[in-house]
Amino acid sequence: MPHPQYEFANGTVNSCRRFHSIPSLQRAPCGPRTNVETYEGQRSANQPREVQKRTFGSAATHIQRNPAYSELNSDDVSYFRSILGDGVVEDEDRIAVANVDWMGKYKGASQLLLLPKSTIEVSKILSYCNTRRLAVVPQGGNTGLVGGSVPVYDEVIVSLAGMDKIISFDKVNGILTCEAGCVLENLSTFVENEGFIMPLDLGAKGSCHIGGNISTNAGGLRFIRYGSLHGNVLGLEVVLADGTILDMLTTLRKDNTGYDLKHLFIGSEGSLGVVTKISVLTPAKLPSTNVAFLSCNDYTSCQKLLLAARRNLGEILSAFEFMDHHCIDLAMRHLEGVQNPLPASQYKFYVLIETTGSDESYDKTKLESFLLRSMEDGLVADGVIAQDISQASNFWRIREGISEASVKVGAVYKYDLSIPVEKLYDIVEKMRCRLGDNAEVLGYGHLGDGNLHLNILSSKYDDNTLAQIEPFVYEWTSAQRGSISAEHGLGLMKAEKIHYSKSPEAVQLMASIKKLMDPNSILNPYKVLPQSVL
Amino acid sequence: MPHPQYEFANGTVNSCRRFHSIPSLQRAPCGPRTNVETYEGQRSANQPREVQKRTFGSAATHIQRNPAYSELNSDDVSYFRSILGDGVVEDEDRIAVANVDWMGKYKGASQLLLLPKSTIEVSKILSYCNTRRLAVVPQGGNTGLVGGSVPVYDEVIVSLAGMDKIISFDKVNGILTCEAGCVLENLSTFVENEGFIMPLDLGAKGSCHIGGNISTNAGGLRFIRYGSLHGNVLGLEVVLADGTILDMLTTLRKDNTGYDLKHLFIGSEGSLGVVTKISVLTPAKLPSTNVAFLSCNDYTSCQKLLLAARRNLGEILSAFEFMDHHCIDLAMRHLEGVQNPLPASQYKFYVLIETTGSDESYDKTKLESFLLRSMEDGLVADGVIAQDISQASNFWRIREGISEASVKVGAVYKYDLSIPVEKLYDIVEKMRCRLGDNAEVLGYGHLGDGNLHLNILSSKYDDNTLAQIEPFVYEWTSAQRGSISAEHGLGLMKAEKIHYSKSPEAVQLMASIKKLMDPNSILNPYKVLPQSVL
Repeated sequence: MPHPQYEFANGTVNSCRRFHSIPSLQRAPCGPRTNVETYEGQRSANQPREVQKRTFGSAATHIQRNPAYSELNSDDVSYFRSILGDGVVEDEDRIAVANVDWMGKYKGASQLLLLPKSTIEVSKILSYCNTRRLAVVPQGGNTGLVGGSVPVYDEVIVSLAGMDKIISFDKVNGILTCEAGCVLENLSTFVENEGFIMPLDLGAKGSCHIGGNISTNAGGLRFIRYGSLHGNVLGLEVVLADGTILDMLTTLRKDNTGYDLKHLFIGSEGSLGVVTKISVLTPAKLPSTNVAFLSCNDYTSCQKLLLAARRNLGEILSAFEFMDHHCIDLAMRHLEGVQNPLPASQYKFYVLIETTGSDESYDKTKLESFLLRSMEDGLVADGVIAQDISQASNFWRIREGISEASVKVGAVYKYDLSIPVEKLYDIVEKMRCRLGDNAEVLGYGHLGDGNLHLNILSSKYDDNTLAQIEPFVYEWTSAQRGSISAEHGLGLMKAEKIHYSKSPEAVQLMASIKKLMDPNSILNPYKVLPQSVL
Repeated sequence: MPHPQYEFANGTVNSCRRFHSIPSLQRAPCGPRTNVETYEGQRSANQPREVQKRTFGSAATHIQRNPAYSELNSDDVSYFRSILGDGVVEDEDRIAVANVDWMGKYKGASQLLLLPKSTIEVSKILSYCNTRRLAVVPQGGNTGLVGGSVPVYDEVIVSLAGMDKIISFDKVNGILTCEAGCVLENLSTFVENEGFIMPLDLGAKGSCHIGGNISTNAGGLRFIRYGSLHGNVLGLEVVLADGTILDMLTTLRKDNTGYDLKHLFIGSEGSLGVVTKISVLTPAKLPSTNVAFLSCNDYTSCQKLLLAARRNLGEILSAFEFMDHHCIDLAMRHLEGVQNPLPASQYKFYVLIETTGSDESYDKTKLESFLLRSMEDGLVADGVIAQDISQASNFWRIREGISEASVKVGAVYKYDLSIPVEKLYDIVEKMRCRLGDNAEVLGYGHLGDGNLHLNILSSKYDDNTLAQIEPFVYEWTSAQRGSISAEHGLGLMKAEKIHYSKSPEAVQLMASIKKLMDPNSILNPYKVLPQSVL
């Protein structure tokens, strides 16, 4: 799907502007294993899996259903029907879709899907479930990558898909207020027509909900320019576990009256409350966007290029994405209609740079001179600048399509790590050495934010491969003081792994807050926090 | 004091570039009083004030000392001396300074000032105070405006002034890690020498501590460009009420592992924990800064100018500050060595626009052509662009000196409001009508953020004047769905007024969190939250 924001003064399709090339491609030698390169013993294949079928996220197979939760009965369904009418879904096929994540990796066994149309309905649902001790999984676009948005057992699924209205847009200040079930791409289209852009953009934008974005504190492609949702979300309306409606839906840029509670719900993955409405600051849409697709001969050059881009492109830099050549090869094999703008597989690394500013010719000149200087300095081996929106879309399609292409291989083990930039690619090479020919290892991501996406592709999910990956990947990341989840959240996959990135004192305080706000633990159980602390 | 960040290619002192002028100055007629223009009866002058002498912040005179707190004894002092040595201050003069805020408006009666040198020492102090039920007021630079940083009664003052070390600076990513007692201006100077700037700047920068900035979620002059501390602070180390050290001192840009607890401490005014260390993202220092000082004939023009600046200056706009002519008159009367760049008192409104970018000549041309177009459109009456750092400093000195000049008149009632931009100046005119000749009313602030500073100057503090101002100012702001504290916090002054900006459900949840995290309520008592909910 084309990236919708590009506007170029020159609408004609020219060939991309090319720079000279210095091809070089060598595989890094595998170094010796370090102390942290240990791994857990293989999980028993005979262990009962109960409801889950393919839960290869860490430890998911070890979790037992919490017997404190009630089981759904016909009276419950009748009650829900009395408040929601046809918003109660018992159709098996529709429920089946909501029970599984888009990768087909996490699968629950819910028997009920609820589609509230208003905050009041969400409040009534939660109030009832809290009293009845019925566990609930809030669901947005179900595009998550860590099993956070699907049931683990028989939790009632509360989908926000029916709450997809734009409530207001302040054209003076660029402040959008909308319901949580709005699809990100629809919001993007809406605000762009008003001369603004959403402060976040991600590959799943065609399906993901803004409520889900907020609940997972989604990062994405514009983070380097516009920062995190903690900075851009102005207000939230949230329904708490007991049905209390918490109105924090301010549209003010500044408000220092008491504790800023909305931040508790940004990134807590629906475990503290269900986000129902949002107000968010949208930056002005600037008229000039340029996209370059470059290659580098080594990772050190990518790092130096990032530093140079920060210094020289300054206020117009809006994306700095990197991919290794394995990603490019995969995208070319599996994505329809995508072309490599540079000679295939000649380089080890590729970088996509986007600039966004208010002056077409000035910005383009600035980007071109930056790239020429980077080539003279030996940082860039080859490169092209998109000459029209079609070329720009093709560049972005490669970067954004990696996740989609990964799934087509069969099984994909996905990791989303924050690592100091200078060490960020080490884990990719280490993982390649560990896995050998058993898997294909891809490294790509938001280099400007120190965020690596590590995808490990295999023909099928199996415990042997998993044992080669985990806990090594977490131990190594922890040893670098990195984060085992930069932007995907913990979900079911990494709830028990939180200690790799957070101190015991911090986890204990999180658990205390969870118990305070959801004493019956009905909201998104088994996720985010380890069972042992709850 | 000069604004330190200005660099101009042309170092010579030229006269400012002038635009033609269209003078106009009329006082707005006072409209009829609206429904919300009620006010409380005058407070009794006979009411016992106990420790406070001039606590004209709302309701401060009504609060009784909480008898649950112990009174300090010699054993306590001996214990503190055993862990802090000469960090225990009993000298009356030094304690007197720490007992009163810089405006001389709030005054406590603490008998002990503690100056820890490390996080461990802070932890030992709090652990002891928590066990002994000794109330504590954490103190930074004591530059707050709402009585948040001084004792109300005999709380032990824990000053962070002794913890002022820079711990590390990551020159690649611009990440500063430091102790909480570092003075903001010192940090600014340090990072500017490394090619970066602090993401916040405010008038009190020469005294305020970064820990205090974070605890009050300070906004300031760069908010329009770099956003809030919730977006810029990467990590914190905090000591909880029971002495637990909470290490959240990550330097990662992205980390979605569990609840992002640091946001609880940003803006909670030391009532949930004492911030001891900080890591913060510092933006790259861009080489070109330009400052313009403009006049507008009416408030509508100021608003239109803001819109035009957002559209046309786009990514280089770094400040948009406005002042009414009363502010300018005051600054000229009370600030030494300050000159009005424009003919004195001819205009009703003044605007300071700053741009920061990476290209000196391009940025200057852009600003000049924007200003010429704005004059042609009738938005700007007169204007100058600073030709050197001295002129730029003079422009900023006017804006930043208003607060300092206000205090010189005698008494100043300060309000810090977020109000939708289109109605922002209404409250200034309404207040002028209410107060007549009894007081001088100034309106200025960060127009780009919808943040008005309303200063009401009088020869002395008195209950009659206060009753004319409050609760009207809060009721009116609440009716506009504004915030009664945009950036100053609630402190003692507005703790009991939180309901004007927050729902009962939100206040209740704040109280629950306070009770969870500080069950003995030893941290900064009587502030932030109403006593009735604790």
